[in-house]
Amino acid sequence: MTDILPSYVRDAWWTPDAGTAGIPVRDASTGEVVTHVSTEGLDLAGALEHARTVGQASLGALTFHQRALLLKEFALALTARKDELYELSKRAGATVRDSLNDVDGGIGVLFTYASKGRRELPNAQVYLDGPVEALAKDGSFLGRHVYTRLPGVAVQINAFNFPMWGALEKFAPAFLAGVPSVVKPATPTAYIAEAWVRVLVEAGRLPAGSLQLVSGGVPGLFDHLGLGDLVGFTGSASTAARLRAHAREGVRFTSETDSINASVLGPDAVPGTPEFDAYVKQLMVELTTKAGQKCTAIRRAIVPAGVRDAVVEALRDKIAERVVIGDPHAESVTMGPLVSLEQRDEVLRAVAELEAAGGRLVLGTTDAPEVVRADGSTGAAPDGAFVVPLVVGFDGDASALPDAVHDIEAFGPVASVLAYRTVDEAADLVGRGGGSLVTSVATADPAVAATLLARTAAYNGRLLFLDRDDARTSTGHGAPVPHLVHGGPGRAGGGEELGGIRAVLHHMQRTAVQGSPAMLTALTGVWHQGAASRSDRHPFRKPLAELRIGDQFASPLRAVTLDDIETFARFTGDLFYAHMDEEAAAANPFFPGRVAHGYLLVSWAAGLFVDPAPGPVLANYGLENLRFVTPVSPGDEVRVVLTAKQITPRETDEYGEVRWDAVLLNQRDEIVATYDVLTLVAKTWEEGDAGRPASTSPEPAGVEA
Amino acid sequence: MTDILPSYVRDAWWTPDAGTAGIPVRDASTGEVVTHVSTEGLDLAGALEHARTVGQASLGALTFHQRALLLKEFALALTARKDELYELSKRAGATVRDSLNDVDGGIGVLFTYASKGRRELPNAQVYLDGPVEALAKDGSFLGRHVYTRLPGVAVQINAFNFPMWGALEKFAPAFLAGVPSVVKPATPTAYIAEAWVRVLVEAGRLPAGSLQLVSGGVPGLFDHLGLGDLVGFTGSASTAARLRAHAREGVRFTSETDSINASVLGPDAVPGTPEFDAYVKQLMVELTTKAGQKCTAIRRAIVPAGVRDAVVEALRDKIAERVVIGDPHAESVTMGPLVSLEQRDEVLRAVAELEAAGGRLVLGTTDAPEVVRADGSTGAAPDGAFVVPLVVGFDGDASALPDAVHDIEAFGPVASVLAYRTVDEAADLVGRGGGSLVTSVATADPAVAATLLARTAAYNGRLLFLDRDDARTSTGHGAPVPHLVHGGPGRAGGGEELGGIRAVLHHMQRTAVQGSPAMLTALTGVWHQGAASRSDRHPFRKPLAELRIGDQFASPLRAVTLDDIETFARFTGDLFYAHMDEEAAAANPFFPGRVAHGYLLVSWAAGLFVDPAPGPVLANYGLENLRFVTPVSPGDEVRVVLTAKQITPRETDEYGEVRWDAVLLNQRDEIVATYDVLTLVAKTWEEGDAGRPASTSPEPAGVEA
Repeated sequence: MTDILPSYVRDAWWTPDAGTAGIPVRDASTGEVVTHVSTEGLDLAGALEHARTVGQASLGALTFHQRALLLKEFALALTARKDELYELSKRAGATVRDSLNDVDGGIGVLFTYASKGRRELPNAQVYLDGPVEALAKDGSFLGRHVYTRLPGVAVQINAFNFPMWGALEKFAPAFLAGVPSVVKPATPTAYIAEAWVRVLVEAGRLPAGSLQLVSGGVPGLFDHLGLGDLVGFTGSASTAARLRAHAREGVRFTSETDSINASVLGPDAVPGTPEFDAYVKQLMVELTTKAGQKCTAIRRAIVPAGVRDAVVEALRDKIAERVVIGDPHAESVTMGPLVSLEQRDEVLRAVAELEAAGGRLVLGTTDAPEVVRADGSTGAAPDGAFVVPLVVGFDGDASALPDAVHDIEAFGPVASVLAYRTVDEAADLVGRGGGSLVTSVATADPAVAATLLARTAAYNGRLLFLDRDDARTSTGHGAPVPHLVHGGPGRAGGGEELGGIRAVLHHMQRTAVQGSPAMLTALTGVWHQGAASRSDRHPFRKPLAELRIGDQFASPLRAVTLDDIETFARFTGDLFYAHMDEEAAAANPFFPGRVAHGYLLVSWAAGLFVDPAPGPVLANYGLENLRFVTPVSPGDEVRVVLTAKQITPRETDEYGEVRWDAVLLNQRDEIVATYDVLTLVAKTWEEGDAGRPASTSPEPAGVEA
Repeated sequence: MTDILPSYVRDAWWTPDAGTAGIPVRDASTGEVVTHVSTEGLDLAGALEHARTVGQASLGALTFHQRALLLKEFALALTARKDELYELSKRAGATVRDSLNDVDGGIGVLFTYASKGRRELPNAQVYLDGPVEALAKDGSFLGRHVYTRLPGVAVQINAFNFPMWGALEKFAPAFLAGVPSVVKPATPTAYIAEAWVRVLVEAGRLPAGSLQLVSGGVPGLFDHLGLGDLVGFTGSASTAARLRAHAREGVRFTSETDSINASVLGPDAVPGTPEFDAYVKQLMVELTTKAGQKCTAIRRAIVPAGVRDAVVEALRDKIAERVVIGDPHAESVTMGPLVSLEQRDEVLRAVAELEAAGGRLVLGTTDAPEVVRADGSTGAAPDGAFVVPLVVGFDGDASALPDAVHDIEAFGPVASVLAYRTVDEAADLVGRGGGSLVTSVATADPAVAATLLARTAAYNGRLLFLDRDDARTSTGHGAPVPHLVHGGPGRAGGGEELGGIRAVLHHMQRTAVQGSPAMLTALTGVWHQGAASRSDRHPFRKPLAELRIGDQFASPLRAVTLDDIETFARFTGDLFYAHMDEEAAAANPFFPGRVAHGYLLVSWAAGLFVDPAPGPVLANYGLENLRFVTPVSPGDEVRVVLTAKQITPRETDEYGEVRWDAVLLNQRDEIVATYDVLTLVAKTWEEGDAGRPASTSPEPAGVEA
């Protein structure tokens, strides 16, 4: 490792001039100097401008799917060099189990966004939000919501505890949205951020300007940011408040800050129940993983008054059984040091404050512990930032507890234990945290869970319910998953990260677009009812290369007879009275008498629009939003109009999805039914081809590789 | 009207002690004193606490649908007394046409939310966002996003220009979300806000604490607000910034501020085209409606350099033809005064600043105009706040234009006209507004529209495209519609209002909820795959009063033969080769050989699960999210499992919607297809009943009254 940690700006590695001192960064277990950090002389404004110009241009040339596939490549590149990242992380105090959260967790975020980007976003550059809104009776004026990417740069200010996961969970959605990132790691673990960035750079697939790394301070940052830029901050609530005040109008600032998260043991979850065991085990995990240095860790264990001592005892046993503290380089170690001596001192200071407010240590001691050293020997480690798991007990009624227990965060292996008497009281205690990232509840009683949901959801970004069914498979109190939003109200920062494509959309502007059907069709790439159509030849004979939205097939009318209805009823077994019994059908409020089966009509529609010979349309893999609008009586006639509505070619296959707008009409041109037909269509096709397009990997429809 | 305008707090009318002076509010056309405004002695903290306790409790007892029906009652009550509101509005300078925006517009928002609340929200108290996320391979641990209402109060600080629409567009979504409102009108039009609140109070259907009105100042407001409360502000950008700085952590503060909106004339829209005419007409409307006192009005007309003079001339003609300025009490008047002399002075000051920056008046004059008085006579009106439509021209290249033209807002009948040479230059000009509520574009050229969308959407809350197809039906540049979001980035305040249920969700907290299928089922009221089910008797024989989520019907297997496939193919006409030609089918990448039609399987499923005799299930009105997963070959067998997933009783009918989870399986228990079946089910049913439930109004399925 170099003497001064490099930054990666304007698509090149950069270090300060020789002779720059820099801030030393030390090994968490031994105090040895690992590297130095400095950005003296770095052209921050130039880096931001590079992102806004070169980065915006290179990402703007790609679709969501193309960006998603690059994320998959990044994930694969990091997976291939995972062991290097594990080794480096040990110097910051991370055990291999900790690295499962940080290294594998970060890679997992990339894989999830690679997958969701292709499954849940179109292969395009804009994203449509919600359905079309008819704004004129005659259908000539429509509105809908369109997301386009922000034109600026996403500055990501990360915390020290997850130098990889914490950075990648911000980078992945920004990249997928098409917004370039400038990553600013925290000093104590900046060398791990440098390592993963280096892996991506060396993989050689980063679009120009899409990712930059500033390994050190960013003085004057906010002077260079304006409308169209974003800042995503993870860290303390006080720093977040200070930064937010500097953000100019139009800068999208979000923060995800440490919070005083709670974990509630339900009154039903008495000792001996699976929920009690799951609660205690989770508490042990949250105290010891990353040595408790997690924004999501449990800070307040809220338990029924009668079982408080039982919880502490069970936790003590679990820790004795499972926890070995020491240098993560030693194999037996399951809990590492804090990231630095400064961090240790801050944690002990916070514990002292909790004690001053009336708490007393019911588990653990603040004395410097004996630990396992890197060589496997045991003894004191005066230069290592070690703290054992600590639990602070508070006596007295819930309402009489000091504010300190809800306010003071000891960002290490520290939790308070508080007693409640009623579930409402437990809910009050959760809320007194002033807004949290997560609260977990161990209960098998739906009534307890319902009360806590109703009373505490508004105070939490995430609620986890542990019971005997999910105790084994739960991803855990402290582990945000990329599928669900991460962030909470109030004290927790008020932001939202992750949550699948929700975080992608955070990097985009939602704009209401109004216009005629033709104009909305042209602007969105999705055909709108009322726009022009083309009926030159059957659209099922056109491969993706030739098919255009608006290509249409309109069938002739087909008469529906009573005999048809009865034939269908006998064939399917669907003898519902509305089809079979004139008198009973007429008594139904929705039918004029016997009517055709909805499924008959949809089946006939397929018969009317299908083109039987092998061709580019490979399969009908589904159907959406079917509504039966007008009943069809014997003697009525029906026809179908099918129009290509949206075309989504796949990047990695020789076919793509085509969504067709289907409208069934009767002989009076009344709408009988509307729905979307979902098909797979080959990219190319020559008449005479067999059914298989070149190099298509057979896979279940709708499921991606 | 009383001497001091009353407030409505803690469910009672309140006025300051006799002798309180108050701020005078004057008639905009004549300067006569209309009323006085004061909140001296008002217990603001008590009002807020009343909302958080009584208001939260009374709204919390209602479902979304019940609240939506109350909004409809409010709309009907206001409609019945619309003329009073028109009359009162004239005193503030509003013509009847202006009242169509404010009074009818406000009522329209209530109707829209009444309708959307019942069509797009469940008849419940929580809202589920997005699909379920599987977080464990065995399905025992799931996640999804749940919105619950915020536990506080929504304080709505309104601008003077739309005392009714502007207040109701904030109130309606808060009410629907279940969050009580405290409305603070602007002083110059507070008496109109008092009037509509009085109508609602007198209608006698307001839930206790759900609406309060503070007719005057709110000193110290922010000291009383915290986590769970909201502030929605409409007004100037500078006031918004000041207020925002006072909001404590956790207060959800949004603002919708005046912005320097643009309207672009496309290069194709030369004089003589319908787009040119539509552009000029819209410009005239935006200058004169509400005398230009609209946050959404056009402030910058951006036109091709060659047609600038033609635009100004056409606008001059249009104004001469259509605009009569005067006291709205006179019938001939089509444009009223500004709201006050202070407002007039401020507008003229802003015009002077634009002139100082290099602009010159190309239309109109700042001299006091002759106007039509209330009695129909014409002459000077020295105490009326009259200003004629003014257009300020700027010469020179787009890039050389002064900042003032993009920064200074004259909040009256004033627009600048700027020339551009290329579409990219026009886009740059739009962006220089620093974030706008709306930009409109008159063009029939999709390429022009696409460039402007890509380049300017991120700078706008709304984009309106005018062309010959929608010119007649367009709702207009300046008119937000309740279906679409209102608000814009940067200078426009960064907030979002309206947009259908998006604004409802703004009053709720999105929380990620994790748990077992059984727990998520209990918490959400929606059955989740993996939760317990009940198969005591056929669920189609249970009316809503007896049906519970989880009620299930599992059919026996039914064998599919080649003959069945051929029979179905002949009956429907669907002779697609995958069903009819073994060799061609086998060549298709997705099929092992000939397979059954998807529609055959779905039709058979209905035959397997239907219960033929008249019963509580009245109709199958649709189907959603159908996916064909595993092909079915001749010789395979299929069965269906149908489970009650979501039950939505209607408030105003004797039936409701039931959504059924349908899973088709084969003889190997592989999933063949999944979908939701949508049915209408009667609330009550006695065996022997005819098909018609009591007092059901026949209406098309899925469409509400």
